[in-house]
Amino acid sequence: MALGGNALIRKGQAGKVEEQFENLKRPLSQIARLSEEYRIIITHGNGPQVGNLLLQQECCDAVPRLPLEILVAQTQGQIGYMIESTLDNELMALGLDGKQLFVTLLSYVVVDDKDPGFLNPSKPIGPVFPEDVAQKLPYPTVKTGKGYRRVVASPRPLTIVEKREIKRLIDAGFIVIACGGGGIPVIRESRSFHGVDAVIDKDLASAKLAEEVGVDVFVMATDVEGVAISYGTGEERFLDRVSIHEARYYLEKGEFPPGSMGPKVEAAIQFVERCRKRAVIASIDAIEMAVHGNAGTEFTL
Amino acid sequence: MALGGNALIRKGQAGKVEEQFENLKRPLSQIARLSEEYRIIITHGNGPQVGNLLLQQECCDAVPRLPLEILVAQTQGQIGYMIESTLDNELMALGLDGKQLFVTLLSYVVVDDKDPGFLNPSKPIGPVFPEDVAQKLPYPTVKTGKGYRRVVASPRPLTIVEKREIKRLIDAGFIVIACGGGGIPVIRESRSFHGVDAVIDKDLASAKLAEEVGVDVFVMATDVEGVAISYGTGEERFLDRVSIHEARYYLEKGEFPPGSMGPKVEAAIQFVERCRKRAVIASIDAIEMAVHGNAGTEFTL
Repeated sequence: MALGGNALIRKGQAGKVEEQFENLKRPLSQIARLSEEYRIIITHGNGPQVGNLLLQQECCDAVPRLPLEILVAQTQGQIGYMIESTLDNELMALGLDGKQLFVTLLSYVVVDDKDPGFLNPSKPIGPVFPEDVAQKLPYPTVKTGKGYRRVVASPRPLTIVEKREIKRLIDAGFIVIACGGGGIPVIRESRSFHGVDAVIDKDLASAKLAEEVGVDVFVMATDVEGVAISYGTGEERFLDRVSIHEARYYLEKGEFPPGSMGPKVEAAIQFVERCRKRAVIASIDAIEMAVHGNAGTEFTL
Repeated sequence: MALGGNALIRKGQAGKVEEQFENLKRPLSQIARLSEEYRIIITHGNGPQVGNLLLQQECCDAVPRLPLEILVAQTQGQIGYMIESTLDNELMALGLDGKQLFVTLLSYVVVDDKDPGFLNPSKPIGPVFPEDVAQKLPYPTVKTGKGYRRVVASPRPLTIVEKREIKRLIDAGFIVIACGGGGIPVIRESRSFHGVDAVIDKDLASAKLAEEVGVDVFVMATDVEGVAISYGTGEERFLDRVSIHEARYYLEKGEFPPGSMGPKVEAAIQFVERCRKRAVIASIDAIEMAVHGNAGTEFTL
């Protein structure tokens, strides 16, 4: 289950803690029920949370700044905590507390230092700066609608470092929360790992984890009901089922924007092609129905 | 292995990331070697790191503030990452990379909502404020040497929520990093857990974990070579070995200050009394020797 950003912060919300906990009940009540029938891995985004930590760093000269990969590690702790405590309450409501073990793992994802993403960093993160401030920042920025934002590389995930640990925990009956924010990006240099300033797309990282662990169903939960073509035009058509052949055709035609539905469709295609199992993109309100094949867009061979 | 704050930030350092990684090599090179012979659980403090997050929150009104337990979760992510990446390098230097699995767990510690600590919060945390600012803060403060600081409760740890998960991982051969910063403090209300604004003493939480998992040796690594009586006077005497009976006598006589050696001695006494195994307080530079019985202060029945 890859939970999108709206699992924590819904459109128009400032992201207060109470709101985030309230929002989490929606996906986690469904996941708690599904846990009676399925073994589950939960992954999640971290965009607004990393953005807040970056903004706080800019505000506060008294504290030494931390590199991006450490901020990602902080958000894995933060969001893992919020998911676990909500899940605990939802399991309890079903009388499953104590029976269902769960655990949050810090997780790392290996990327290639020759990934083209590093040559042209293009993923905007963190706060918006006016032009004069942006020019003095020690890292590249890009002009966006509201002003300038820092850009970082978004390299492709090669492998999940903790895949064995996660598999072992799943086999032992745990619900595992992992790969938060797409994982802490690391590069393998000769035999050594080290963190890099980058962010990995959460859906692509989740697809890789789903493949490496060998799951039966890969669900991406987001703020729309599934995939549509001609989205936002009078011709809009919702796709209940789509073959990966057809999906790739739409993707190449530019039907899905790069920052939102594009990586999800790509992640679904990649998973189905390699694992020959089901992938579903569905609303966060319809996770349970999507698992049972009654909601969302299902990708097939 | 309970690692003290100096595992990350040594006296006189500002706490830059490079310094913290450099410092971590000292304990983790020893732990990497010990991992060939022992199964190991690592716990750690988080005082300066939580302090920095609190200071950043004070600096930055644009970001909604997070409660203390979420900041603790963030530092578990941050420090877990720093320990893991250093450990990975140290294992590699020994040719053990890939053979030795390790994992960081978000961890919770149950405290009693009737703990006397909640009536008289006494643990100072975070930044120093001038008196006029302190009076307007929405939480209790205390006057310290430098100015006013926020105080929170430091309740006693009752049980580690993840004790079963940690035991299972240890049995499966993992090095486990857990109970960072004393754990995320939670209260059990009827059947529900929820986080509380408090910090748990890292050594007392580690002793509880050591007891609940059933370890053979409990090591607390700190910035002095062990326990001394009449510390800082001409009469100072270092203790190589001390019975818990004798240690309790010195503790009650006020030989060990509450904020530093006191809780360590108390944690050692508690562990040895309940588990009838070895506890050692030693320098972070002598962890390996301490495990082998050749350094530090050993507590015996």
